[in-house]
Amino acid sequence: MYNLLKGKKGIIFGALDSKSIAWHVAERCHEEGAEFTLSNTPVALRLGTLNELADKCGAEIIPADATSVEELENVFKRTMEKFGGKIDFVLHAIGMSMNIRKGRTYDNIDYGFYQKSLDISAWSFHKVLQVAYKLDAIKEWGSIVALSYIAGQRIFYKYCDMADAKALLESIARSFGYIYGRDRKVRINTISQSPVLTTAGSGVEGIDKLFDYADKTSPLGNATADDCANYCVAMFSDLTKRVTMQNLYNDGGFSSMGMSEQAMEVYSKGIDIQ
Amino acid sequence: MYNLLKGKKGIIFGALDSKSIAWHVAERCHEEGAEFTLSNTPVALRLGTLNELADKCGAEIIPADATSVEELENVFKRTMEKFGGKIDFVLHAIGMSMNIRKGRTYDNIDYGFYQKSLDISAWSFHKVLQVAYKLDAIKEWGSIVALSYIAGQRIFYKYCDMADAKALLESIARSFGYIYGRDRKVRINTISQSPVLTTAGSGVEGIDKLFDYADKTSPLGNATADDCANYCVAMFSDLTKRVTMQNLYNDGGFSSMGMSEQAMEVYSKGIDIQ
Amino acid sequence: MYNLLKGKKGIIFGALDSKSIAWHVAERCHEEGAEFTLSNTPVALRLGTLNELADKCGAEIIPADATSVEELENVFKRTMEKFGGKIDFVLHAIGMSMNIRKGRTYDNIDYGFYQKSLDISAWSFHKVLQVAYKLDAIKEWGSIVALSYIAGQRIFYKYCDMADAKALLESIARSFGYIYGRDRKVRINTISQSPVLTTAGSGVEGIDKLFDYADKTSPLGNATADDCANYCVAMFSDLTKRVTMQNLYNDGGFSSMGMSEQAMEVYSKGIDIQ
Amino acid sequence: MYNLLKGKKGIIFGALDSKSIAWHVAERCHEEGAEFTLSNTPVALRLGTLNELADKCGAEIIPADATSVEELENVFKRTMEKFGGKIDFVLHAIGMSMNIRKGRTYDNIDYGFYQKSLDISAWSFHKVLQVAYKLDAIKEWGSIVALSYIAGQRIFYKYCDMADAKALLESIARSFGYIYGRDRKVRINTISQSPVLTTAGSGVEGIDKLFDYADKTSPLGNATADDCANYCVAMFSDLTKRVTMQNLYNDGGFSSMGMSEQAMEVYSKGIDIQ
Repeated sequence: MYNLLKGKKGIIFGALDSKSIAWHVAERCHEEGAEFTLSNTPVALRLGTLNELADKCGAEIIPADATSVEELENVFKRTMEKFGGKIDFVLHAIGMSMNIRKGRTYDNIDYGFYQKSLDISAWSFHKVLQVAYKLDAIKEWGSIVALSYIAGQRIFYKYCDMADAKALLESIARSFGYIYGRDRKVRINTISQSPVLTTAGSGVEGIDKLFDYADKTSPLGNATADDCANYCVAMFSDLTKRVTMQNLYNDGGFSSMGMSEQAMEVYSKGIDIQ
Repeated sequence: MYNLLKGKKGIIFGALDSKSIAWHVAERCHEEGAEFTLSNTPVALRLGTLNELADKCGAEIIPADATSVEELENVFKRTMEKFGGKIDFVLHAIGMSMNIRKGRTYDNIDYGFYQKSLDISAWSFHKVLQVAYKLDAIKEWGSIVALSYIAGQRIFYKYCDMADAKALLESIARSFGYIYGRDRKVRINTISQSPVLTTAGSGVEGIDKLFDYADKTSPLGNATADDCANYCVAMFSDLTKRVTMQNLYNDGGFSSMGMSEQAMEVYSKGIDIQ
Repeated sequence: MYNLLKGKKGIIFGALDSKSIAWHVAERCHEEGAEFTLSNTPVALRLGTLNELADKCGAEIIPADATSVEELENVFKRTMEKFGGKIDFVLHAIGMSMNIRKGRTYDNIDYGFYQKSLDISAWSFHKVLQVAYKLDAIKEWGSIVALSYIAGQRIFYKYCDMADAKALLESIARSFGYIYGRDRKVRINTISQSPVLTTAGSGVEGIDKLFDYADKTSPLGNATADDCANYCVAMFSDLTKRVTMQNLYNDGGFSSMGMSEQAMEVYSKGIDIQ
Repeated sequence: MYNLLKGKKGIIFGALDSKSIAWHVAERCHEEGAEFTLSNTPVALRLGTLNELADKCGAEIIPADATSVEELENVFKRTMEKFGGKIDFVLHAIGMSMNIRKGRTYDNIDYGFYQKSLDISAWSFHKVLQVAYKLDAIKEWGSIVALSYIAGQRIFYKYCDMADAKALLESIARSFGYIYGRDRKVRINTISQSPVLTTAGSGVEGIDKLFDYADKTSPLGNATADDCANYCVAMFSDLTKRVTMQNLYNDGGFSSMGMSEQAMEVYSKGIDIQ
């Protein structure tokens, strides 16, 4: 629409199907003139419909397990080869908790699963960054974004070890943001997004009610996947060159709310019928 | 109970009646061996029952409008005279909004009232500090606490301009905390307390339901006035000598919560009957 | 460059001369296709060179003391008249401390000056918002930004009562952001900007060394007035529709730094020669 | 001195020698009437002088690798056996980074070492909590504290992956704090302590200059190990019953500072000689 990303090249990790936030980001980046490769795990490629997105955006798919340094190296090398040099932006939209999947609560986690949660959802971001840094894959004033959630700061029951994963993810953004900024003028931020009913998320029991609470608490309502895509475009563009090491809430105001009138109305009804 | 404040002298601003947090703080300080004077406005002295507290604690009452530098000077001078020198601690528990009293919402405030809200609820703290500083009224390693509320960070509908007042109050604690720490080794902190159904607060319509929400959201339940009194004792004692310029939540965990299971149960019922 | 603000109308408060951040914001908004009016105090209009900017951008100048509700009403009414209806964006870049100007330190402030600092630097933002709200002057999904500084969270010696003013300004953004979001889908944010050597700021003694420290501490260096202008464009555009009630650091990473290697090198030399 | 912890039983993890913060905490808890066991790894027991502390406090030493659930179970079971039931408090003062030890920078970390850093410095806290929870080892209104550092929020060059470890540690305190508060009325907090020149820390090159910077930036100077011990006593006592899920800065005001006059003086000299 604005050619904000014209000439920019990137990698988008984590799109699965049309409900994925990363899918929307890819579509918007494409509209804004960016070229990019898409990456996800082999199993996600089978389960999802990523080919459709790739066709639409003229993007190559490069399968990779984001916990494998070697496979990440392949993603970056192949992408740089394709675009003839360094790239401009990266989106990390990867997260998974085996503890949640297996119905384990936070007071009964399996430490093997816990390591997997952190490895997939947080360390993978460090691996992406370290691989990119070592390959010198990102141009000056390039921009890297990872998707996070406010559970990194405040506890939502049932979110289990993903709260820890998000806190760690945001710390990695700050820690590597210092180095990547200092040495290569690359910025690294996280976007802390409203809940979105993705294929992954919508399976969680009771998520629709939490979604309703967040929506009624947020003065502008929950930010959608499209809102997130637009915010990513702004962060990948040259409009935000000196914004780095930040956790940016895209949440309709939720993070600055204690209690809204709308949410209190519902809550009050809940009290009255007790 | 522990003689934690034995030999310490202080001033407690803002006790009205036995529901006041400051009242509970005074009682606990007395139990811990402190001596202090009590101060409130002449009108509060008429409306409340401060004499009862003064008798119990052997404390002198020094009336003062906390927005008047002169009257505050009198409070400090009289207190120092009484105790023969510098004092150890001060509690500031003062707040009032004419906009709320007159039923004005935040999009329709009267700026004369707004100034009054800030003057009474926030600048008065600067005045207390500047008067104390100029009179050199506080001993090395003395401790000053003002009571705040999480509305300084997150918006609660109906709390109106008191949110701004609390944000300003906390900024004053930091700003003066730097100077008073650097020059006199005195620490200044705010305690951000759970809602308490005081005489002042309990008149607000719907406050009981907000109180219920806060209580069910906080894993340990709302902190009571007694809890706050205990925390103040800890902050006035020698156990916390190098804690300064902090906003300390005494709230049963509320500030670190997104959504608790207990509160969600009530909210879900509210949804179901819509 | 991108037509990001094509068709959008606004008001920009606070440009004085070409060093002003607001000046750069105006230039960039103009480049992006926006139309707007410019406002500043009569005295600023005499001291500065605002006509030059107005000519360049085809903007009308509407003088106003931003502490006067009436004069602000005039700015909004005249602007709406000119553009034939509601507007899309507002920039508030207004701040001044008489205590600093008169060389008063924070432990010796004049309360008349203090009120003036808060009135000019913070309440004026509430007045802008309340006037706009009552006149229903802002379109759905409109965007309002005020410029802030990290002194709202952390103390910089010499910044005196402007720290309190910025904390209050940010609270007003949250407080009114709730209402304006809920009722009209308008977003309100503050941008917390790196120090910039403006005409106003460059007179402060020692500011160049603080500027150097901030620059060396920030991995990407201090954000410039142009960087701020770009960030404002992003915030006024449709790319950030559900970002509200946030304080957004545009600071090269300063706010997330404890100590950088570069700043420590300078500091270490300072130690060594003691 | 005050009998604040009279009758209370606990476990203190992480004391090595008389420079350890945990050592000072143990001494102060003993003075305040607490009884406790001490735990550290077998290798730490060989390298340090823990027997001396154990003798002084009448405490039993129970060796354990805090990354081993089984060994932690043994610590809790043996402690409960010794004291005839549930205990009141736990201190977690455990941290180590192989990446730092091996001189690896954050852009070149070894992921095996990284996992070890997180396991030792952060997951071990989850393991302590989960073991305690499953054994129902902590009394109602019991109190658990872990030691942290501001690198969890702001980046200090050279602190490498310990920044991530501290961010994760603090998230674990919040996540488990919710559950332990809700189910058993036990509170969990982290104390974010000024740098202390411990045996572990004092080996890091340049740490003395960072220490100097922190000291000059903090209005009250760096908090010492004794200050930390006193704060832990306050947190273990009944004075802070409803404080939970908080990260509490014990740092002389450092965390609320942007730039102090004293630190700027040193920095300015460093600039002048360039």
